[in-house]
Amino acid sequence: MDLKTYLADRAAEVDAALDAFLPKVKEKPSSIHEAMRYTVFAGGKRLRPILCLAAAEACGGDPESAMPPACAVEIMHTYSLVHDDLPCMDDDDLRRGRPTCHKVYGEGMAVLTGDALLTEAFLIIAQTPAAKRYPAAAYVAELALTGGSTRLIGGQVMDLEGEGKKLTKAQLVKIHEAKTAALLATSIRLGAMTANASDEKLEALTTFGHALGLAFQVIDDILDVTQSTEVLGKTAGKDVAVEKATYPSVLGLDKARKEAAKLTKQALDALDPFKKKGARLREIAGYLLKREY
Amino acid sequence: MDLKTYLADRAAEVDAALDAFLPKVKEKPSSIHEAMRYTVFAGGKRLRPILCLAAAEACGGDPESAMPPACAVEIMHTYSLVHDDLPCMDDDDLRRGRPTCHKVYGEGMAVLTGDALLTEAFLIIAQTPAAKRYPAAAYVAELALTGGSTRLIGGQVMDLEGEGKKLTKAQLVKIHEAKTAALLATSIRLGAMTANASDEKLEALTTFGHALGLAFQVIDDILDVTQSTEVLGKTAGKDVAVEKATYPSVLGLDKARKEAAKLTKQALDALDPFKKKGARLREIAGYLLKREY
Repeated sequence: MDLKTYLADRAAEVDAALDAFLPKVKEKPSSIHEAMRYTVFAGGKRLRPILCLAAAEACGGDPESAMPPACAVEIMHTYSLVHDDLPCMDDDDLRRGRPTCHKVYGEGMAVLTGDALLTEAFLIIAQTPAAKRYPAAAYVAELALTGGSTRLIGGQVMDLEGEGKKLTKAQLVKIHEAKTAALLATSIRLGAMTANASDEKLEALTTFGHALGLAFQVIDDILDVTQSTEVLGKTAGKDVAVEKATYPSVLGLDKARKEAAKLTKQALDALDPFKKKGARLREIAGYLLKREY
Repeated sequence: MDLKTYLADRAAEVDAALDAFLPKVKEKPSSIHEAMRYTVFAGGKRLRPILCLAAAEACGGDPESAMPPACAVEIMHTYSLVHDDLPCMDDDDLRRGRPTCHKVYGEGMAVLTGDALLTEAFLIIAQTPAAKRYPAAAYVAELALTGGSTRLIGGQVMDLEGEGKKLTKAQLVKIHEAKTAALLATSIRLGAMTANASDEKLEALTTFGHALGLAFQVIDDILDVTQSTEVLGKTAGKDVAVEKATYPSVLGLDKARKEAAKLTKQALDALDPFKKKGARLREIAGYLLKREY
């Protein structure tokens, strides 16, 4: 199966699973379920869940078992976007080419929608079948640690606190590790765990996910200054406007591009132990990192 | 041990456990950990965790095993207060006699503090030891369902949507079931589950928690109109000011008082099957429902 078909098929499977997991709009109160679905079905690429499923396959597992964590990480990612877009945070009106949650449903509802999605992510991940090495609670703990105050949320805190300040490269890397790379690496780890991955394999995939996540963020930063709002589907030039430190602003565009290439190589090298079984992950990484930048 | 000593001892144990579970302030980023601790250690009565521990005891279990869910429900309760108090929701400046989280740390940080607490609650509950009848994932699912879009968060949605509208008693009960009674009942259920409670016992305690939670809310509503801000430690008369439907406004003060008494009796009757083992829960219920109202 070629990559394009693989990605489309997997995204459709994830969408179907998300639809089955999320409460129906007719469940009361309808307004919150409508808002949850508005944000989840806003045309995301399903990058994190696809990586989760592909990691399960790379470790010889059944993607079916990896579907609960795949959906949970996507929902956690979505909640973080809803809250980050709030007026009291990054104050963004546009996301994935559509008005953000608070623009459509109001601020109070957007806070509650994010809360509901975050809670739902845990309801879903609690349904992951235990593997020999990984009891059911291990998936919950992994997601909670990654989503918590030292990683996903901590990254947003550091991001807010860094606005208007001159950051070093080390500080910037710390923010992106916490804000982006951690959840990406966890998406991959959770998939591997459902396939009962050995410590060595889990370690290699963690390195892969980490480098991939950082590379992805460097490229996102570059695109924010080089692309238009129409192409991005979110407000372009936003980082510069709020004086947010980014790879291009800290390193310059040229060095930022080199950094992306270096991280991409790191990610691909980490897959060496998987030999042929790593082919799909290698392909996905190549696809993600070969966006025009 | 008399009730006063019991409550003080248990609250101290819960505080010590919360202190051990929560990230230290020195962990980076410090600001979020300071804000989390500011809101958690704001002098709450630890009602939910104490009920959780007492329910474990009533079922012949070890309160030690019930400590993770006890702390998790308290942290979930605290997060919901932080978000409910936000300007875009109930807009409250005072909570437990102190400035609310967003008054001290700003709105963006208050959103993130609530998110971090909610996530932390799941990290903690994932540490609950499995009982014969209840696998570890059952505790997570119970907490996620109660905290989710049809109960805790759904209740706040209905509450926001009901402001300024004339509600029936049935609609009011629905809001309070979702917003208050569900988490109270779950606190008790989780404790009983760690003690491997039978279906019958769990059922009886669910009825108890449900009636206790509703009674508690009716009394809270009454106190909001009859007591001062100083006595309450939160803004008095707030419900009337925002035209929020309450038991006194829907039923009148007299009938609201009778409703509280009826629910109290329901709660106590549900404990009959526990005979002597239900003594402590009976005492706590009596104490909670005998506030001046």
